[in-house]
Amino acid sequence: MNSSPLSFHIHAQEGQARAGVLRTRRSVIETPVFMPVGTLGTVKGVRFEALESEELDARIILANTYHLWLRPGADVIRACGGLHRFESWGRSLLTDSGGFQVWSLGALRKITEAGVAFRSHIDGRACFLSPEVSMEVQAALGSDIVMMFDECAPGQADHETARTSMDLTLRWGSRSRARFDELQGGEQDSGRCAPTEGLSGAQALFGIVQGATHLDLRKESLARTVEIGFDGYALGGLSVGEEKRVMYDVIEEVAPMMPVERPRYLMGVGTPEDLLEGVARGIDMFDCVLPTRNARSGQVWTARGKLNIKNARFLIDTRPLDESCACSVCRRHTRAYLRHLYVTGEMLASILLTHHNLFYFLDIMRRARQAIALNEFHRFRHETLDMMSAGV
Amino acid sequence: MNSSPLSFHIHAQEGQARAGVLRTRRSVIETPVFMPVGTLGTVKGVRFEALESEELDARIILANTYHLWLRPGADVIRACGGLHRFESWGRSLLTDSGGFQVWSLGALRKITEAGVAFRSHIDGRACFLSPEVSMEVQAALGSDIVMMFDECAPGQADHETARTSMDLTLRWGSRSRARFDELQGGEQDSGRCAPTEGLSGAQALFGIVQGATHLDLRKESLARTVEIGFDGYALGGLSVGEEKRVMYDVIEEVAPMMPVERPRYLMGVGTPEDLLEGVARGIDMFDCVLPTRNARSGQVWTARGKLNIKNARFLIDTRPLDESCACSVCRRHTRAYLRHLYVTGEMLASILLTHHNLFYFLDIMRRARQAIALNEFHRFRHETLDMMSAGV
Repeated sequence: MNSSPLSFHIHAQEGQARAGVLRTRRSVIETPVFMPVGTLGTVKGVRFEALESEELDARIILANTYHLWLRPGADVIRACGGLHRFESWGRSLLTDSGGFQVWSLGALRKITEAGVAFRSHIDGRACFLSPEVSMEVQAALGSDIVMMFDECAPGQADHETARTSMDLTLRWGSRSRARFDELQGGEQDSGRCAPTEGLSGAQALFGIVQGATHLDLRKESLARTVEIGFDGYALGGLSVGEEKRVMYDVIEEVAPMMPVERPRYLMGVGTPEDLLEGVARGIDMFDCVLPTRNARSGQVWTARGKLNIKNARFLIDTRPLDESCACSVCRRHTRAYLRHLYVTGEMLASILLTHHNLFYFLDIMRRARQAIALNEFHRFRHETLDMMSAGV
Repeated sequence: MNSSPLSFHIHAQEGQARAGVLRTRRSVIETPVFMPVGTLGTVKGVRFEALESEELDARIILANTYHLWLRPGADVIRACGGLHRFESWGRSLLTDSGGFQVWSLGALRKITEAGVAFRSHIDGRACFLSPEVSMEVQAALGSDIVMMFDECAPGQADHETARTSMDLTLRWGSRSRARFDELQGGEQDSGRCAPTEGLSGAQALFGIVQGATHLDLRKESLARTVEIGFDGYALGGLSVGEEKRVMYDVIEEVAPMMPVERPRYLMGVGTPEDLLEGVARGIDMFDCVLPTRNARSGQVWTARGKLNIKNARFLIDTRPLDESCACSVCRRHTRAYLRHLYVTGEMLASILLTHHNLFYFLDIMRRARQAIALNEFHRFRHETLDMMSAGV
């Protein structure tokens, strides 16, 4: 009997692209999967009922450790029974480690062997985040998938900088693993739940592969991260300033070397094109703020590429955002109305555009999974990418 | 066969309180009814699917002529097939005349016999609104209930000021009626639809009674407005700075004198207390921005009175907003979570608090209707008001 925190089975493969089923202690997730980002315990502008609906059917969403640690604080969420109960989400949650967020603070933070000292972006308060603290906070949150605490190197980092950063990340990975294991032994996990179908009911921990754009470092990082041993493996430090072609090359080279029987997660990526290119190279999991963040500035994805709803040409355009889209926004509302909402600053613009964009991202992954199962992914990917470049 | 634009039947009465059914060309509306305000063609923060849901089940909503005339403009809405098609709402719409909005502009507007010259609050453009223009814009919008163009006097207006204003309103009422009738003869109504159940399929026009707090003027205004003849009658110019007691007295004196067989509408009022007091005095229809606007500043109505969600005492309060409330927000979310959303500026705070408040306002009217039908309204009103003052 398997008593690991999650199970993962591949049921179809076409080239490097894989279709599988990931089970956490809380939900069944078909992969490849796009995970909407719920930074502060909410996918901005979307009710949980909509995320659970058959239309969107998100099986796993993200939350940010850094943001929740600062507000409302781990103690508040622990007192409320963990993040699932706090936000009232019964499906899977993945929390990042906070590593990327503190790294992004730039001049506001100082990185040492021990961890990262920084000032809160909210009130300037002095804070300290380390592998141990990150594991403790993620245990308090009780997420189903915990990410190890890592350091990110800039996309253009030279070999020496990238190696130094990678080595630090590996040491932080070992410390994450050790503290995580202690916590799982105890009763720290607020979100602990009854084991189902042979799962242990404990949290799962993912390792993160770094090494910037240097393939030798990426391979070394991968080997040494696997040596520590995790329930899944992520590629971190991509889409942070390097050329898109370079990112695809790193994925193409490294993903197939990642443990076949474990989920592979490309962190913080990306556009619909990136998702298809990532799937083609063997990635199973993705997350990105693009569909939600861009919706709030009027940017919309359609089968024929992006459009910006504030454009004057939509003034009396009574067509839906995307004539081929089956989402509830496209079935009901016109570009003219959505443009009016956006131009007048109405909240409903963000709500509806976010809903459409999330549907688009979740649906393209649904269709990718189906295509892999039918051995039609190669054709699907090329037809979809061609159509996207046709223009609205 | 009745060929009027709407039908109205009272099926129960207790004291002055009446329960009835109002039919427009588009929906069946049980009265007394609260009408959510959709100023710019959206009830802020609420998807139309939620308004239509069994939970909220709003049968009629408002839209503001002034706001829609400025943005996106009557031509745009006409080109998109009228306001129902523009915002995709199949149930009833009531549009105000714009009179109150231009009156509220204060120093930015100049009132003459012809109408009101003003500068747009958006871009300073010179505009002119008159009874005729208001009727033309409302015909382009195609609302089911059109309001005559009136002038509002301040709550503390002295007798002479109030009389001058009332006389002007009456002349504007006649001009509204005349222009409205011309338009209904033609093909100006974008929202025209097939007549149902003996209704004409045309728009309905409501008259507005003014006269500030002077009962003799109110009565004269009512008599002369009825003489012009409308499909329903509204009390305007209340809740504009006068004492609450004075407002109740005006309603108590005037409402019972309004035509029994026509719907009586108290414009822009009010709090849940005001709704119950209005119903007790014979009012059938209400609208107010309070449930939606106050939600966006964290104010919530409960059976035990108001609470402000940002209050620190809710930090780890895992109870719902209102323990006796059956709405989807109270069934799912805690005060602690809603406070967190509000404090971090998350859009979901406004979405969820608005939903709860609208449920509260719509539900209290649902219960009032039921109570009248059971001849228990007197008890219901007192028990509800007592409970409200108990405090959260």
